[in-house]
Amino acid sequence: MATLYNTIANQSLERLGALSDGVFAFAMTFLLIDIKLPEVEHVRSEHDLLVALAAVAPRLLAAMLSFLALSIFWNGQQTQLNYLKQSSRDLTWLHLAFLFGIALLPLSTGLLAEFYLFRTALVAYWLNFLLLGALLYASWRYANHAGLIREDTPTAINHAICRRVLIAQCLYAVSTALCVFDTRLSLGCIFLVQLNYAVAPRWPGKQNKPA
Amino acid sequence: MATLYNTIANQSLERLGALSDGVFAFAMTFLLIDIKLPEVEHVRSEHDLLVALAAVAPRLLAAMLSFLALSIFWNGQQTQLNYLKQSSRDLTWLHLAFLFGIALLPLSTGLLAEFYLFRTALVAYWLNFLLLGALLYASWRYANHAGLIREDTPTAINHAICRRVLIAQCLYAVSTALCVFDTRLSLGCIFLVQLNYAVAPRWPGKQNKPA
Amino acid sequence: MATLYNTIANQSLERLGALSDGVFAFAMTFLLIDIKLPEVEHVRSEHDLLVALAAVAPRLLAAMLSFLALSIFWNGQQTQLNYLKQSSRDLTWLHLAFLFGIALLPLSTGLLAEFYLFRTALVAYWLNFLLLGALLYASWRYANHAGLIREDTPTAINHAICRRVLIAQCLYAVSTALCVFDTRLSLGCIFLVQLNYAVAPRWPGKQNKPA
Amino acid sequence: MATLYNTIANQSLERLGALSDGVFAFAMTFLLIDIKLPEVEHVRSEHDLLVALAAVAPRLLAAMLSFLALSIFWNGQQTQLNYLKQSSRDLTWLHLAFLFGIALLPLSTGLLAEFYLFRTALVAYWLNFLLLGALLYASWRYANHAGLIREDTPTAINHAICRRVLIAQCLYAVSTALCVFDTRLSLGCIFLVQLNYAVAPRWPGKQNKPA
Repeated sequence: MATLYNTIANQSLERLGALSDGVFAFAMTFLLIDIKLPEVEHVRSEHDLLVALAAVAPRLLAAMLSFLALSIFWNGQQTQLNYLKQSSRDLTWLHLAFLFGIALLPLSTGLLAEFYLFRTALVAYWLNFLLLGALLYASWRYANHAGLIREDTPTAINHAICRRVLIAQCLYAVSTALCVFDTRLSLGCIFLVQLNYAVAPRWPGKQNKPA
Repeated sequence: MATLYNTIANQSLERLGALSDGVFAFAMTFLLIDIKLPEVEHVRSEHDLLVALAAVAPRLLAAMLSFLALSIFWNGQQTQLNYLKQSSRDLTWLHLAFLFGIALLPLSTGLLAEFYLFRTALVAYWLNFLLLGALLYASWRYANHAGLIREDTPTAINHAICRRVLIAQCLYAVSTALCVFDTRLSLGCIFLVQLNYAVAPRWPGKQNKPA
Repeated sequence: MATLYNTIANQSLERLGALSDGVFAFAMTFLLIDIKLPEVEHVRSEHDLLVALAAVAPRLLAAMLSFLALSIFWNGQQTQLNYLKQSSRDLTWLHLAFLFGIALLPLSTGLLAEFYLFRTALVAYWLNFLLLGALLYASWRYANHAGLIREDTPTAINHAICRRVLIAQCLYAVSTALCVFDTRLSLGCIFLVQLNYAVAPRWPGKQNKPA
Repeated sequence: MATLYNTIANQSLERLGALSDGVFAFAMTFLLIDIKLPEVEHVRSEHDLLVALAAVAPRLLAAMLSFLALSIFWNGQQTQLNYLKQSSRDLTWLHLAFLFGIALLPLSTGLLAEFYLFRTALVAYWLNFLLLGALLYASWRYANHAGLIREDTPTAINHAICRRVLIAQCLYAVSTALCVFDTRLSLGCIFLVQLNYAVAPRWPGKQNKPA
């Protein structure tokens, strides 16, 4: 009976997408809302306020880094969902675990912003990325295995989706490993990797088709 | 006139689904955001930070437990909605009451995380589960009674949905009753029950069809 | 040119519905999340915890009252949107103002929960209801006037939507006026009025058709 | 390969709209939720409460100003999305950057509310508006350039969308520049500009078609 229930549950891609958009939207907004503003008592002049705002900068940079990360993972997830013809019980659970990782990101961002000189905070932040990448990879492999992918999906795209996750995760891992020298070096590298995915500069020598 | 208004109101399943996804998305994300990070002043070394993070563990475990619960109830609700052909005024109100229970879960989770050694907190947490199960059961029974279920729904599925809620609630009740020995034993059992629903292991001897 | 822009903007009912569902979902969930739990330090026994939870009761009751209110207004708004064939610039702005009133409700609920013995808090709460009712009424009148209502909408329904808002607002106003005796009397009456709209008991003598 | 991935990613306008609605809904609601209520201890009479509520007024006005801004930008964005036939990778990233600006608004509103007599706070608030306007303008120009606009869009509308952003930004810049006299003068002007966009009064001499 449980088996029967499991075969009928969660076939709807639409509601999975809607839930995901809600979790992403809330996590994205919360990243910035969570930033503490300067206290009124300590500010008596324009100069005081500028100094107080400068002290908020590390928190704002951490929020931007995580906003970029959320944007990249949102793109990754919705590209996958676009190529599915339907969901299944197990695929839905993989995506729910993925959403757990998304909901965890504001927390690990807060940790990073407060303790960015500590390797523990950086590694915790990276583990969050690793979890998200692993689940995105697993959900695509599972969708392939279970025949949930639309028939008109070219093989090249199928491979591109997998390879993208793997390469990104390698770059994040290498960037994080640089914390043996300095955690700020790691963060700089992670930022550059993400910026590369966001801006997607078109290097000479590659053929670029207009989107 | 009131009767006329009531027959026309709330027939839209789409907006009920969208509202539900919003409430679920916010409750899921809030569970994790609500976790307090260690204070900067008390942390002077990597070791301090690891110790401080370990102290956050019970809170994180409670959040995971409730995230699992929200995922299971989200699945339960959307499976029901998938099999409806339309909503009605009364069905919408049953689902709005269900959403009240969902919005209550971060609160009862916070209570549990702070007071997990107290039976009062555990029972309050379980009452939240009971409320959600009872409303899900009532809404499905009502939908059957009011003829809102799609005609192509096999009887076996109709029964499977009811039975699933009843069995899950029995398991939660038995787990909670174990708090006469130790509240941690109860929590362990609830966690195992939920994990069983999430992972849905395929026991040998049952026939499993690929989803 | 501004005129041209105004004629093209905001014709989409779908995105207005989606934005509304988001605001409602967040306001509903926040009502309950905002409740402060007992402090760990003051609780040493099961009895302490029960006493501490009892102290939370007024806050929880206020949250339930406002959750009911949000549910009723959500129903009212979506019933209206269901009968529109399209939106227009001005109608969208009326609904955005309505959403402002919705976003204000957690604030006036918090005020009421803290100061429920003060008439000022009760009147502020009622003004929030009045604002919401007035905007819902204005948006329906405007939709009628601007020809945005679906042609297949029976006249009886058109009138029922208007009358419903007017009657509810009268009942809220009378309930609030009872605060000259006691604010708790007012709150009890408002609760009964809302419960009546939620449960919609079928009085003998009225013809009720199954929905 | 990266190029291939980029051509396939993010063509869905629906999920971009849903994510946007979520971010807007959360930011709108948070603006009002963030307002601190008077402390219970300091209030002993109705008069005390009225005085305490009056002290909340600047915060509430700032929230209203930003709610208006969010409404205007939401209208601006969804009007653009309505005229697109599809999205593309780059357009999606422009809109994600736009959503970053939206998520930033509650923060800059909080800053303005606390420090509305400081030019630094006012300029930070205006920079947030400028960022949003610039991204909205860039995304429309890009959509034109990349051929993503629906073929049936009249040229007049295409121009109206661009001109609207430019004129609004000029008015905001001039209003902000008035802070050399007084920041409150600037805020008054910004409020009037926004009110003009929201109410869209129909000046005599212009031809107005019913929407």
